[in-house]
Amino acid sequence: MSILLKNVTLEKGREVNIYIEDNLILEISKEVKDADKILDCNNKIVIPGLANMHTHAAMILLRGYADDMLLQEWLEKKIWPIEAKFNEEIVYYGTKLACLEMIKTGTTLFSDMYLYMKAALKAVKEMGLRAMLAEAYFDFFDEEVAEQYKKKSLEFLNEVKREGCERIIAALGPHAIYTVSKDSLEWISELANEKDVRIHFHLSETEKENKDCIKKYGKSPTKYLAEINFLSNRVFAAHAVYLSERDVRLLSNHNVKVVSCPTSNMKLCVGSALNYPLLKKHKVLVTLGTDSASSNNNLDMFEEMKFFSLLQKFYHANPVLLPAKETFEIASTNAYKALGLNGGKIEEGALADIVVLNAKNHYLLPTHNLISNLVYSANGSVVETVICDGKILMECGKVKDEDKIKQDGINAIKKLIQENG
Amino acid sequence: MSILLKNVTLEKGREVNIYIEDNLILEISKEVKDADKILDCNNKIVIPGLANMHTHAAMILLRGYADDMLLQEWLEKKIWPIEAKFNEEIVYYGTKLACLEMIKTGTTLFSDMYLYMKAALKAVKEMGLRAMLAEAYFDFFDEEVAEQYKKKSLEFLNEVKREGCERIIAALGPHAIYTVSKDSLEWISELANEKDVRIHFHLSETEKENKDCIKKYGKSPTKYLAEINFLSNRVFAAHAVYLSERDVRLLSNHNVKVVSCPTSNMKLCVGSALNYPLLKKHKVLVTLGTDSASSNNNLDMFEEMKFFSLLQKFYHANPVLLPAKETFEIASTNAYKALGLNGGKIEEGALADIVVLNAKNHYLLPTHNLISNLVYSANGSVVETVICDGKILMECGKVKDEDKIKQDGINAIKKLIQENG
Repeated sequence: MSILLKNVTLEKGREVNIYIEDNLILEISKEVKDADKILDCNNKIVIPGLANMHTHAAMILLRGYADDMLLQEWLEKKIWPIEAKFNEEIVYYGTKLACLEMIKTGTTLFSDMYLYMKAALKAVKEMGLRAMLAEAYFDFFDEEVAEQYKKKSLEFLNEVKREGCERIIAALGPHAIYTVSKDSLEWISELANEKDVRIHFHLSETEKENKDCIKKYGKSPTKYLAEINFLSNRVFAAHAVYLSERDVRLLSNHNVKVVSCPTSNMKLCVGSALNYPLLKKHKVLVTLGTDSASSNNNLDMFEEMKFFSLLQKFYHANPVLLPAKETFEIASTNAYKALGLNGGKIEEGALADIVVLNAKNHYLLPTHNLISNLVYSANGSVVETVICDGKILMECGKVKDEDKIKQDGINAIKKLIQENG
Repeated sequence: MSILLKNVTLEKGREVNIYIEDNLILEISKEVKDADKILDCNNKIVIPGLANMHTHAAMILLRGYADDMLLQEWLEKKIWPIEAKFNEEIVYYGTKLACLEMIKTGTTLFSDMYLYMKAALKAVKEMGLRAMLAEAYFDFFDEEVAEQYKKKSLEFLNEVKREGCERIIAALGPHAIYTVSKDSLEWISELANEKDVRIHFHLSETEKENKDCIKKYGKSPTKYLAEINFLSNRVFAAHAVYLSERDVRLLSNHNVKVVSCPTSNMKLCVGSALNYPLLKKHKVLVTLGTDSASSNNNLDMFEEMKFFSLLQKFYHANPVLLPAKETFEIASTNAYKALGLNGGKIEEGALADIVVLNAKNHYLLPTHNLISNLVYSANGSVVETVICDGKILMECGKVKDEDKIKQDGINAIKKLIQENG
């Protein structure tokens, strides 16, 4: 399959045609090539796809199910009881609905950690996005439970391998240091090396996590993880809100990637923000994520860029921090780089993960500075067409079977709630 | 003109028809009345129009013109030099573009303070929104300049009176205590009483403003304003970030209205947030605003609700603070209440300022809690139809002459920049 994006205006005003063959951007030039599909990009803006590097996608079915509650009450009374009823069907339909929202809002790559990930894998494969998928692992310091999760993790890695879908990257998903034992973390780390897969992990999201860790082990979560040889360039650490400079140095030395989730941090009131200037100083690669739609409550990376930049500026009282271009790269290029993928950029040879925007959308006018408009003014509704891995997932605002995907998601969660009172 | 909104599902699941005659909601019932215009509201959600209570609308033409800069540099090198070139034409086209964005994103009422407000008045009249309009007043402690601004203010009040448009509310716009002399503030306060008009004002936006005031007058801005008899139920105080409990008590005693602008406060790094719990404790009426699109960078009140709620929760480390319903009322009902208008609600007898949303938009699915979805997930793109003062300003996403309004705005700012290098 080949696609020609015709009359694309690039950032510096240069007008070109972008020729895509299979899953790569093959040529960016003045040349008008014939292609299986030609898209007129007059009055359109072309950007690399955005990357949402921390999600629990299927939880989109719980959007608005429990808001404005104290964390413990939220978890114990609302989220955990209903999640305990979740099954493959729910995760399949939930992940499809989440993929739909991500496509609609210009995301081409995401990193998901959740339950019943075989079902999620099926959903992502069908929806066409690029994703790193991890079966969540919680042993709650119980050896028997650990055995079950080891089995689940291995099964999921095998399933991804069996599917052999190039867009899907397998990962392991140890939840956090307060839910996964030292033995399990060591097992996961060794397995990741052996199988050459990545690790999706929650790190220092709350002050409590840090305090409890210091009480239990006499050291910070990051130091504890470094000492058990868990830290490596395979690890994607979500949140990372409470880090000392020594922690950041450890992350940097081990080439750990950090995923900031500013909106979720604000809504759940973790009480602090990512220390981006410190991470930047130590050259830690930072990416961006929404977290789940129960704590966000959407998966719109345009909105996330604004929350990220503004929270950083506000928290560090520095308006010069994170100019729009830097934020935009964190939400696109950095994630592809973190995964060793040649993408997240409009360049010859790069993966054809491309988003076409309506340049005449009111949020983007006037256009003194396109990147400023994208980061500070736009939201996902400016997206018209999404190409991932060289395939068109949305054209002119329409995703195939969109209404059915929505209705299936609604029906699935309705049924689950009805059956379980 | 009469409008029937047919098969509207209200919040509690009740299905009704809403009958509008002239500018009022006349009847909410099962009855199907004949009307000049019938809108099928199956799969639609009907909400009161949102209210943006602090804007400098025409500055939308400077969206993205100068971001990520230090405040003083931003003002001195970018904003003030170009604003000095502004004229009636620019303000007219800019205000029209701002009104377009507000209509598109579900705002029916706004409160604007800017320059060349006769031109803004013309624009608002044409666009059909409800607005409180104030000619900005800065004398910079110079008597001659004060005389010019007194003249401008009086002329503008007369112009609003002459126009006699019921949707337009006249106001005075003294900029702030550090730009307007005591004499002028006293003159404005007396004039407001005499002419029965409101006052749109910036109060305690930055710590510097407070510190300078204490240094100059030995008291806080609020106390200073109370002592010169400036505070009254006519005053709408924007920002109000740095207030002591004594200040809040003074605002409460004088029935001053407060307009919070969380996104702008975060982007400009004012270093603190509105003390909403304290204002609530003292029963100060709080409303919400975007500030200008040079410091926001859009006029989308859905986004503003999320920033408001999340900044409050985060800043006060309290997730229970500002449940979605309370935030929604602050962004709608409270503003109408603050102006003594019977609106901002879907009730018989209320002003017909109504917004129709697409219930099937992905941001709103599933619908466990509609208000949660509106505040935490949606943005202005869920809006389909907007009725203000009983007139349809947008139907199914289309505003009359939309493309021309956009192009006129773009052309006007382009011309100004070209002519002035």
